[in-house]
Amino acid sequence: MAPQEVGDSKRIPKAVIKRLSLYSRVLQNLEMKNTAKVSSKELSEQLGLNPAQVRKDLAYFGQFGIPGVGYYVADLRSQIKKILRTDREVRIALVGVGNLGQALLSYTGFIREGFQILGAFDVDPGKVGTTIRGVHVYPIDELEERLRQLGAEILILTLPREAAQAVTDRAVRCGITAILNFVPTRLVVPPYVKVHYVDLTIEIESLSYYLK
Amino acid sequence: MAPQEVGDSKRIPKAVIKRLSLYSRVLQNLEMKNTAKVSSKELSEQLGLNPAQVRKDLAYFGQFGIPGVGYYVADLRSQIKKILRTDREVRIALVGVGNLGQALLSYTGFIREGFQILGAFDVDPGKVGTTIRGVHVYPIDELEERLRQLGAEILILTLPREAAQAVTDRAVRCGITAILNFVPTRLVVPPYVKVHYVDLTIEIESLSYYLK
Repeated sequence: MAPQEVGDSKRIPKAVIKRLSLYSRVLQNLEMKNTAKVSSKELSEQLGLNPAQVRKDLAYFGQFGIPGVGYYVADLRSQIKKILRTDREVRIALVGVGNLGQALLSYTGFIREGFQILGAFDVDPGKVGTTIRGVHVYPIDELEERLRQLGAEILILTLPREAAQAVTDRAVRCGITAILNFVPTRLVVPPYVKVHYVDLTIEIESLSYYLK
Repeated sequence: MAPQEVGDSKRIPKAVIKRLSLYSRVLQNLEMKNTAKVSSKELSEQLGLNPAQVRKDLAYFGQFGIPGVGYYVADLRSQIKKILRTDREVRIALVGVGNLGQALLSYTGFIREGFQILGAFDVDPGKVGTTIRGVHVYPIDELEERLRQLGAEILILTLPREAAQAVTDRAVRCGITAILNFVPTRLVVPPYVKVHYVDLTIEIESLSYYLK
């Protein structure tokens, strides 16, 4: 197996990064079934992709497959986790403990992947000071102080639209460079800050397109 | 403005369809500010894309821009809604009224876009028969009968993983062809059924990749 060669992240399409995560999910399932090897064909079939796509995606990062054998499941998964940098604790904080925030605090997918939501923030005095699914809710006034203390790297925003930009500005000023935004609004951030938008409206609209 | 020419949906990349929805969101904001015209440059800047991308995406569907003028905001938006088929009521049902399900029932983005969640389903006797954010919760046993009655086209799945495939099979048998799946599991469906996956783990993993 060749050493992992992570190129300039700017040159690797976003879609490739997302598919790496999908591959990791399939490999995890195979590992649980004690499957040792997998071909690009088998891997691709489970995701409705074509084998060439899988090989091309992985080729961005090095030479992982062995001709005539395929990939070693455990090894490929650990390589992908290294590439995605999820082979360590990913430190997350969440702002806005409404229904969606609470749903995310108890999202089994995060727990399974070992992601740690280290703290949550809200303005509601009824929520501040409580612990939801093991996560303490801090007052939003303490955002800067607590983010530093918790060592949070990724901020999840599930707060009302009106407050989203102001909270973003505060978080960015104290070092947050990655935001997962569920609020249906575009955020203004410096170029070095990465924002991923989860806009549920867009998912429904694009499904609507495919209805016959 | 040339007539809308929707080609074979198979030939249009998924990413284009999702961007159409983003354009629609920006155009909606411009409309609210009473802006009559917009250039591809202005449109692209608001989304961090390049103008050529915007022009190329729209070119899949016809000739919308006027050289030297740009696009008429209201007209382009209504054309995009036609393409996405959101110029009509989009009929949605939801299965699984936990935290995430409840968050979606009250998601303001859906309401703003005029999407109608017509009914919800759950197994919990404490939830069945109640109305959450104006949406009635039916027992899952009545799934087939109610989906037909409600004329649901899109099914949102926010139920536990163990139940996801069985509910999918039942829904597909009674005519559902579009599913928005929040459950972190791959669903097996016939080729004519479109499933969009919202896997929140993948969003976090790809953000992790971009952390320096």
